[in-house]
Amino acid sequence: MTNSSILLDMKWDNLKSAEPFITALPHLHHINWADKKQKQTDLDTVKYALVWKPEPGLLARCPNLEVIFSVGAGVDHIFRDPELPDLPIVRFVDPNLTGPMVEWVVLQVLFHIRQQRQYGAMQQKKEWRELPQPPATRFRIGIMGFGELGQASAKALLPLGFQICGWSQSPKQVDGVTSFHGAGQLDEFLGQSDILVSLLPLTEQTRGVLNASLIDRLARDGPFGAAILINAGRGGSQVEEDIAKALNDGRLHGASLDVFETEPLPQSSPLWGVENLVITPHAAAISDPDALATHVANQIRRYDSGQSLEHLVDRTRGY
Amino acid sequence: MTNSSILLDMKWDNLKSAEPFITALPHLHHINWADKKQKQTDLDTVKYALVWKPEPGLLARCPNLEVIFSVGAGVDHIFRDPELPDLPIVRFVDPNLTGPMVEWVVLQVLFHIRQQRQYGAMQQKKEWRELPQPPATRFRIGIMGFGELGQASAKALLPLGFQICGWSQSPKQVDGVTSFHGAGQLDEFLGQSDILVSLLPLTEQTRGVLNASLIDRLARDGPFGAAILINAGRGGSQVEEDIAKALNDGRLHGASLDVFETEPLPQSSPLWGVENLVITPHAAAISDPDALATHVANQIRRYDSGQSLEHLVDRTRGY
Repeated sequence: MTNSSILLDMKWDNLKSAEPFITALPHLHHINWADKKQKQTDLDTVKYALVWKPEPGLLARCPNLEVIFSVGAGVDHIFRDPELPDLPIVRFVDPNLTGPMVEWVVLQVLFHIRQQRQYGAMQQKKEWRELPQPPATRFRIGIMGFGELGQASAKALLPLGFQICGWSQSPKQVDGVTSFHGAGQLDEFLGQSDILVSLLPLTEQTRGVLNASLIDRLARDGPFGAAILINAGRGGSQVEEDIAKALNDGRLHGASLDVFETEPLPQSSPLWGVENLVITPHAAAISDPDALATHVANQIRRYDSGQSLEHLVDRTRGY
Repeated sequence: MTNSSILLDMKWDNLKSAEPFITALPHLHHINWADKKQKQTDLDTVKYALVWKPEPGLLARCPNLEVIFSVGAGVDHIFRDPELPDLPIVRFVDPNLTGPMVEWVVLQVLFHIRQQRQYGAMQQKKEWRELPQPPATRFRIGIMGFGELGQASAKALLPLGFQICGWSQSPKQVDGVTSFHGAGQLDEFLGQSDILVSLLPLTEQTRGVLNASLIDRLARDGPFGAAILINAGRGGSQVEEDIAKALNDGRLHGASLDVFETEPLPQSSPLWGVENLVITPHAAAISDPDALATHVANQIRRYDSGQSLEHLVDRTRGY
């Protein structure tokens, strides 16, 4: 037993949420920030912190902090802290998160191309009518943000016959996929995307990138004429006013959004009622507490034995 | 140019529907049964017939008929003719039909496990709430009817992480899939199916097989408790009254049906309004005229040059 602690600030409301971490990390003290009684605890012993949207200044109050763990794959929620200490940050990359994300992406792609919303409306009217049905082989999918999640999505979409392109900051190579990278190749990539799947992290470069200008550069010569936009990355990449307008005036054929500029999506948002827009409540992939505890314990074991940490955030890239 | 003809009776209402066949088979006469003026034509020259739901006795009226082609993968619509001549019957097995069928199956599976109907209803109420989300890896899919379409569906579902079993009359082997066959292994197969995907042909053995007794043998220990039924085979395999009842009393968690006992599904059918049932109008996979014409021309070329026909129906099996 050491005197070191892990600060747990997952923003899960349940006090029991600390239990998987107590089981996985028996040699550490646990400071559960969800428990108001522990907020007076001295933070001098904190060596590790596991956080989601930490309050600004909290991490700076831990003088002996050595590693910061993110509850999710994204870390923009950590970078918002102006007093963020210059310490290694570990992302949560996990097959238990990748699988559900891929399910959601494949579902949304098929939902739109198979016109399931229209068939649902026809079912309510007891209307029996076939719609013209272009096959998957005729659709070009552009995956923007082509890391772990993007590549896994491509591998699940390829067997369905789609033509797939990937775009990322740095070059990537995946069998059966045409790869683009960097700002210089963005226009070419967008111009051949009938369906744009965004899995971008939120950085200074990606903030507000899903806007009217980007929408107007998407393909217009696909089976449905206008393109389909699918975003399971971060809401901060969206300009929701532009997306709503493009859906309403037909510059976008359809869209599926799991993330929003403000979450929960406010009741007053005009998005709720937009035709041919699918909204899910940031539910594409939910972190599993047990998998997260195992991941954190594995990385702490590596760190304590002098091995390098995995899934480290590159501060210059911002993800 | 010979004196031989092909009888075209696809039940497509458009007279232009014969055009792809005229292009693909320039050396034959074409008798288009959709054209009322041609119904007086002498059928003595008919060597080939391409049919969908042919009127009983029509094929028997062609004394020099040698090969019957089905417009679809199923041939039950041909066997309904009591005067059916004892001639080779060729099914239409085509990637242009397989691809869309696989899209539909994958969409319906994901639609149910990702609770998209519930999320759609919540969107209408502007309700932001995450539902508990078991991952694909926890669902066992049983594919009943494990031929071309069933195996292609399995190959598209496997990368999503599902556990997959196949059941067919004769043993089949597919990587990553547990195979069952014959009546003796049916109960074991059903008992481990959280999601049953039926792609069965309609034969004497499969008529009415999707009934209350089968539903009661499906798994009850899956993530949702009760099972999900998905049918894109033939409506004649369904007992719709049993399916509606099981959905209403919770013995089925959900269902997607593309085919029905009577098509179009009558306005009076109680199915239209059943909760958690997805209805599509026999639109899972629509035959593409050009692909069908190419297929028929290829097989006629083989036949005329003395090669064996492909995709022949086995009359003892009935498909």
